[in-house]
Amino acid sequence: MHAEIVAIGTELLLGKTINTNVSYLGKKLVSLGIDLFYETTVDDNEIRLYTVLKRALHRSDVVITTGGLGPTVDDITLEIISQVIQKRLILNHAVLKNIREHFHRRQIAMPKENVRQALIPEGAKPLKNELGTAPGLIMSLEKKVLIALPGPPAEMKPMVERDAAPYLAKKFPANWVILSRLVKTTGLAESQVNQKVKDILNAKPPLNVGIYAHTEGVDLNITAKAKSKRQAEKLIKQIETKIRSRLKEYIYGQDAQSLEEVVAKTFKAKKKTIAIAESCTGGLISKRLTNISGSSQYFLLGIVAYSNQSKQFLLGIPQETLKKFGAVSKEVAYLLAVNIKQLAKTDLGLGVTGIAGPKGGTKEKPVGSVFIALATPRKILSRELHLHGDRNALRMRASQAALEMVRRYLVK
Amino acid sequence: MHAEIVAIGTELLLGKTINTNVSYLGKKLVSLGIDLFYETTVDDNEIRLYTVLKRALHRSDVVITTGGLGPTVDDITLEIISQVIQKRLILNHAVLKNIREHFHRRQIAMPKENVRQALIPEGAKPLKNELGTAPGLIMSLEKKVLIALPGPPAEMKPMVERDAAPYLAKKFPANWVILSRLVKTTGLAESQVNQKVKDILNAKPPLNVGIYAHTEGVDLNITAKAKSKRQAEKLIKQIETKIRSRLKEYIYGQDAQSLEEVVAKTFKAKKKTIAIAESCTGGLISKRLTNISGSSQYFLLGIVAYSNQSKQFLLGIPQETLKKFGAVSKEVAYLLAVNIKQLAKTDLGLGVTGIAGPKGGTKEKPVGSVFIALATPRKILSRELHLHGDRNALRMRASQAALEMVRRYLVK
Repeated sequence: MHAEIVAIGTELLLGKTINTNVSYLGKKLVSLGIDLFYETTVDDNEIRLYTVLKRALHRSDVVITTGGLGPTVDDITLEIISQVIQKRLILNHAVLKNIREHFHRRQIAMPKENVRQALIPEGAKPLKNELGTAPGLIMSLEKKVLIALPGPPAEMKPMVERDAAPYLAKKFPANWVILSRLVKTTGLAESQVNQKVKDILNAKPPLNVGIYAHTEGVDLNITAKAKSKRQAEKLIKQIETKIRSRLKEYIYGQDAQSLEEVVAKTFKAKKKTIAIAESCTGGLISKRLTNISGSSQYFLLGIVAYSNQSKQFLLGIPQETLKKFGAVSKEVAYLLAVNIKQLAKTDLGLGVTGIAGPKGGTKEKPVGSVFIALATPRKILSRELHLHGDRNALRMRASQAALEMVRRYLVK
Repeated sequence: MHAEIVAIGTELLLGKTINTNVSYLGKKLVSLGIDLFYETTVDDNEIRLYTVLKRALHRSDVVITTGGLGPTVDDITLEIISQVIQKRLILNHAVLKNIREHFHRRQIAMPKENVRQALIPEGAKPLKNELGTAPGLIMSLEKKVLIALPGPPAEMKPMVERDAAPYLAKKFPANWVILSRLVKTTGLAESQVNQKVKDILNAKPPLNVGIYAHTEGVDLNITAKAKSKRQAEKLIKQIETKIRSRLKEYIYGQDAQSLEEVVAKTFKAKKKTIAIAESCTGGLISKRLTNISGSSQYFLLGIVAYSNQSKQFLLGIPQETLKKFGAVSKEVAYLLAVNIKQLAKTDLGLGVTGIAGPKGGTKEKPVGSVFIALATPRKILSRELHLHGDRNALRMRASQAALEMVRRYLVK
């Protein structure tokens, strides 16, 4: 059983809109046990859409279209569907009523063009649009299914949840279950992770293991297909245990967990507090920690010491230290950590300084040089990093390394 | 002349990654006068990728692939390309050198697998990757062009700007020009902007005007198609002038400019400095200002005063004030602004306090209540906002309103 998506709309190909529907539908299909093999985006052109739809219905069991259901002349999805499946368009009175009511609620007279949206291919089941005028459709075509959905995510998603997903679950009862588990690491390059789990990446069906690199780190995704949830869980558990034994402390979380979420949980469990003095990350570490509601329990103070003056007068970094070692140095990171801890009277003090670029690098300290120090009640830990990427990526990587240092200390 | 994109990666179809490359490449192709007719996403499957690539090269003049150039066994793009165009893979020493240097800079030994990334189809021109190990490629195939790019946007975009776009512009000179202009506003709801420019949104070809709402504000996009650049510019100018006269001070920037970029420029031009004391935004405002390289010229100090203690001892907010008015109040924002200005000895001091939720709201001060104060050499400006959205959106909207307050003051 496999599906494909056909996204319709010139605006998608002109780059005006980022298509987030594929990601939503992809996840939904995974949960239904239906493989998604293709997604095609095509512009509002009758011939190209006809060709793409015809091929999709030929090669896939489930075809889901998004977009092109509006009232304007550009919206050709229903017309082309009716040509491909050779069914007439018939005025559907329930759909027309819904469109009329939509305008009535907004106290606007219904424009004539909107009647077009109620022309539905014969035999299709219309899906109610709670937020707009474009109806969705489900068409059963012998062994295949064609589902047409509106393009705007806010209109599309309720139809999938309420109608399309339950329909697919009933029509194609998965006699097996697909589960996945994302194991998230940070601190290793993709190739280093790859080296450690190379044999595992070759896992054969019903297991699949993929490797994905982001600015935040490298994730391993385990997917298992089995007859029962229990069996799938067992399959995943086996591989997950293997992966965990190889990547150990580099693993910070799983599935949708962000590092800041994991750090937040650990802070709450350990009842510790932190203050942060950051320079090159410019507030990003504080921002990430405070992404989490309730962070005021453990995050007491953040200082973005961007100028040398503020490093001196507020954080007590002596001018000689700044002169001798430079603002970007192990020594300054050390003092930032120790002094912010003292200033805020917290259990931990984090100090981060570095060169985020694109300018400001030197031969000894190129762009990407970052020094992190973590002052704890007993000792001061410190790290020197040489990161790559543009300013944005560098700052993200530096914040990730700093938060990871905090996490590792807390879980020890 | 028309193009198509083939995006390669199981993660895209599993919904793990949202494909933003299509939008970027779509805009780029528009600017080159090349029509984009199709985008196909396919998983890391040899047979399906072979079929999709073969069809793409048959029906389109320019085929751009993204993804699948990494060092792992999942990365099959170059292998399949070499099969489709029937050229051998040859070890490219310049590419290998770049990969070696990448690891050298990061002080990591190059894993053996990465050698695979230097295997390039015969006759292809490799494109240097400044940020990663995967090289890009340009292949001229008689009248057609095949371009292979890495999946991560940060690695892909520089190759397009530096190599691929100039190559296409030279190979396929356009005989008409499409230009667009994005006019960016903040502080008005979409419906308010819509009301002010309703008639303009009905512009007919060769002009097109669209309206797009984001967390940061509402943008208007003007597109014009003409025989010459001058003619297109003239068409755009007319509409743009009209839009500017309607939306006036709500317009903060244009095209790719972010509000922080505009603010940065203005600070540099006016030679003023700022310090920020933020609470609910948790470092986001500081982070946004320091997104811009060179921000240390005007941004001297940021304090994320998340706890009442830090508000008291570091920013001198009296305990009675906190008790009487609450930490989220006009009075506290005022003192944050005045005191951070004094502490950092800057021209401006910005104070922001609010309730980002989801918890912490009360009847008088529901989630979304935000108080902003801007201390200037002469007077203190203040605003009270009632924002909507989840924690993330609320914090973004609060930071946008605060930066906009700074911008409006500076440009006056």
